[in-house]
Amino acid sequence: MKLTILGCYAATPRTFTNPTSQILEIKNRLFLIDCGEGTQVQLRRNKIKFSKINHIFISHLHGDHFFGLIGLISTFSLLNRTTDLHVHGPKGIKEIIMLQLRLSNSWTNYDLFFHELDSKESEIIFEDDKVTVKTIPLKHRVYTNGFLFEEKIGERKLNLDAVQNYEIDSCYYQKIKNGKDITLEDGKIIENEQLSFDPIPAKSYAFCSDTVYHEDVITIIKNADVLYHEATFLDSEENLASKTLHCTAKQAATIALKSNVKQLILGHYSTRYENIEMFKEEAITIFPEILLADDGKSFEF
Amino acid sequence: MKLTILGCYAATPRTFTNPTSQILEIKNRLFLIDCGEGTQVQLRRNKIKFSKINHIFISHLHGDHFFGLIGLISTFSLLNRTTDLHVHGPKGIKEIIMLQLRLSNSWTNYDLFFHELDSKESEIIFEDDKVTVKTIPLKHRVYTNGFLFEEKIGERKLNLDAVQNYEIDSCYYQKIKNGKDITLEDGKIIENEQLSFDPIPAKSYAFCSDTVYHEDVITIIKNADVLYHEATFLDSEENLASKTLHCTAKQAATIALKSNVKQLILGHYSTRYENIEMFKEEAITIFPEILLADDGKSFEF
Repeated sequence: MKLTILGCYAATPRTFTNPTSQILEIKNRLFLIDCGEGTQVQLRRNKIKFSKINHIFISHLHGDHFFGLIGLISTFSLLNRTTDLHVHGPKGIKEIIMLQLRLSNSWTNYDLFFHELDSKESEIIFEDDKVTVKTIPLKHRVYTNGFLFEEKIGERKLNLDAVQNYEIDSCYYQKIKNGKDITLEDGKIIENEQLSFDPIPAKSYAFCSDTVYHEDVITIIKNADVLYHEATFLDSEENLASKTLHCTAKQAATIALKSNVKQLILGHYSTRYENIEMFKEEAITIFPEILLADDGKSFEF
Repeated sequence: MKLTILGCYAATPRTFTNPTSQILEIKNRLFLIDCGEGTQVQLRRNKIKFSKINHIFISHLHGDHFFGLIGLISTFSLLNRTTDLHVHGPKGIKEIIMLQLRLSNSWTNYDLFFHELDSKESEIIFEDDKVTVKTIPLKHRVYTNGFLFEEKIGERKLNLDAVQNYEIDSCYYQKIKNGKDITLEDGKIIENEQLSFDPIPAKSYAFCSDTVYHEDVITIIKNADVLYHEATFLDSEENLASKTLHCTAKQAATIALKSNVKQLILGHYSTRYENIEMFKEEAITIFPEILLADDGKSFEF
């Protein structure tokens, strides 16, 4: 699992900082999460293959999270994309995109599917053989969802020494990987644990932005490997955070602690702060495993 | 008159090139012409004061000319703008912007006026005491206008030596600047030309992008000081230019020649070309005064 931060600053794009957008790579799939203005340039700058993005998840309809979407959709056309593109986001996103395509007398040369969200409960919105994506209902000034990306547990790993030792034919290997016991020709049953190793543990990534301090997310993201949680303000601006339905670094760390996640990545910093290290200093007093997002930074886990 | 090119490349924004946007400064007024994605970042990079922009002119509703508008309008709000903002552009632009403001539950804290265009004839769309702006109907895949910015001829300049010589009272100075003759106390009439100099000649700037080769513009832009004309392709791609309703460098130069403008600035280069000098080399065979636009470049005239 690899996370590339394309932008992690609140509000307006600036010369050297970008609004929210990130690429999550899981099991060779690329998911784009949010798409602030300039995302397509950040994709190029970070050498992300446009053609590998098939699913885009938009948390909410504030500009710093989706103003880059129409440009990216248009650019996909100019790049002669033919693969389907799926956009998951709040009700209304389809109208915004289709209106602009219609008025510019443009159309995509690929199929564009909108999956509009309006549920206030967590729901599965994507699933294939390797990955599940669930919404994390958040509490902000407009309808907002975070997203929980979970790998599915893979096959067991073959213990090559053991299978050769028992002279087991390779046609049984898939059965062993699926967790089944094997009966030898002499009728002896070999338990699966003797022939295979546990699969690589499934990882999970929770994206929570934008939201006020909201403990309802805890049951959904419980025990996640990595949590990205917005920390727009520092504790000194806690009043402003409450008023604008954002969080402080301290509050993000409290959610991480109570959710028992392994690591917390902070982001969505207000551009009023010159030094983002202060966010880490504040959060680490509550929760030890703090990482700071920054534009162009990648995390592998 | 000062022109700052924020972006002058066709189609998609890239790491080091930007779609169309430019700032024209005339008589201490800043006009923003087109607003591709990333324009607000280009404004910052070029140290343009956001608060001085009160009029935005959008040529047409292709993404590389207006996808940055919603972001700029939102950023004006975040910067606590209070001055009126006027957007002049094709019919539909209001619906695009208002839909996004409504769905994001945002509103501008300044008054936002849309002046939607749908006439196929050239018309005056802005006028104050110093400047007039007219549309230049262009021929492209969607309804498109270029814009002609004309300074108004200013007052005549007082010939200080002459007025002192004739002992003319200062209360008549404004009358002289307005071009009137003066009757002295002895009844002698002094002609205005003896008391004043010609005013600084009024300058004009014509912006023509995007369009196929279209001679109808010639009567409108005749004798302009500076013409910015799109040159998306080179002559070797003339077929592609015709097909996509764009121009070649040669065609842009032909329009400049037939319009008798003083200077031609080329821009809107297709990103297929690595070296924009080729556009100049081609155009200069037709018309001598060729300048090349490039992102971040300024021209004073």
